[in-house]
Amino acid sequence: MAAQHRGLTVWFTGLSASGKTTLCNAVYQRLAARGCKLEPLDGDTARKHLGKSLGFSREDRGENIRRIGFVAGLLTRNGVITLAAISPCRTVRREVRASIGDYMEEYVNAPLDVCEARGPKGLCRKARAGQLPGFTGIGDPYEPPLRPEVECRTDRGSLEESVGKVLAAVGRALSG
Amino acid sequence: MAAQHRGLTVWFTGLSASGKTTLCNAVYQRLAARGCKLEPLDGDTARKHLGKSLGFSREDRGENIRRIGFVAGLLTRNGVITLAAISPCRTVRREVRASIGDYMEEYVNAPLDVCEARGPKGLCRKARAGQLPGFTGIGDPYEPPLRPEVECRTDRGSLEESVGKVLAAVGRALSG
Repeated sequence: MAAQHRGLTVWFTGLSASGKTTLCNAVYQRLAARGCKLEPLDGDTARKHLGKSLGFSREDRGENIRRIGFVAGLLTRNGVITLAAISPCRTVRREVRASIGDYMEEYVNAPLDVCEARGPKGLCRKARAGQLPGFTGIGDPYEPPLRPEVECRTDRGSLEESVGKVLAAVGRALSG
Repeated sequence: MAAQHRGLTVWFTGLSASGKTTLCNAVYQRLAARGCKLEPLDGDTARKHLGKSLGFSREDRGENIRRIGFVAGLLTRNGVITLAAISPCRTVRREVRASIGDYMEEYVNAPLDVCEARGPKGLCRKARAGQLPGFTGIGDPYEPPLRPEVECRTDRGSLEESVGKVLAAVGRALSG
């Protein structure tokens, strides 16, 4: 896997505080060090540039993710490895996978209680108290992937192990 | 200018029926024949994938174009020549130019009466009758670029001349 490579969307999904962003950032650094052409897309960037008017209802979050999927598809077909760390909803992920083709899913898996203990800014506590009605995993269901290309149990293994798994899968996808 | 090239956004602007899409498509074909990495972005695609809820008010059209600009920027920085045929509004074009950097503007210029005579589907007639209040150039002002990289008078020259001008400018931008 060198500077010349095909495009690929690497989609990290998991509960809030499961470690998606940490893993995504670590994978980004490693691929960048190899000279890969990379573009990270996150929910906040998408909201800022593609969906200022979108709220946090299930429908609006779905639409935000569809837009990220559209952009990821354009980048992927132009040879960019696009990293996205988002998406609670299986149906929308399935749509994105189908529309992109060169797509793989990394299930960043940690039990809800572990995520709650880690959770930044007391978000889970607020969600439990009903203050964040659409919070994924508490007020709103998280739908884990059924057949992810990679599963990382971030409560058991080290970050380095997870990174290794993802990089191996990316390497296979790009050479396949 | 070969298959390996830098990214660039080539932004065609002009009145409705000035010949933007025809010129953009012709430039696309010529660049594709040289093996360039290309991505065309048009207003309808953007609306479909990035802004279903946007209407046709000045503000909403501006937002649609900003989104196209954001995506064009991502593609451009990843080495793609992005062709966009849109945008009546100078302020938004200025924003897009500033945010992308590798950007050039093609002013597709034909007088309003020529565009009206050409106009597809009787759109200009409808606009004159007040049936399309935001129609660019009639109900809504068209703001021609002040310093376009290329200007093509499509009522005077042939399509092939216009294509030649654009290709020469693209070649200069990519080698510069």
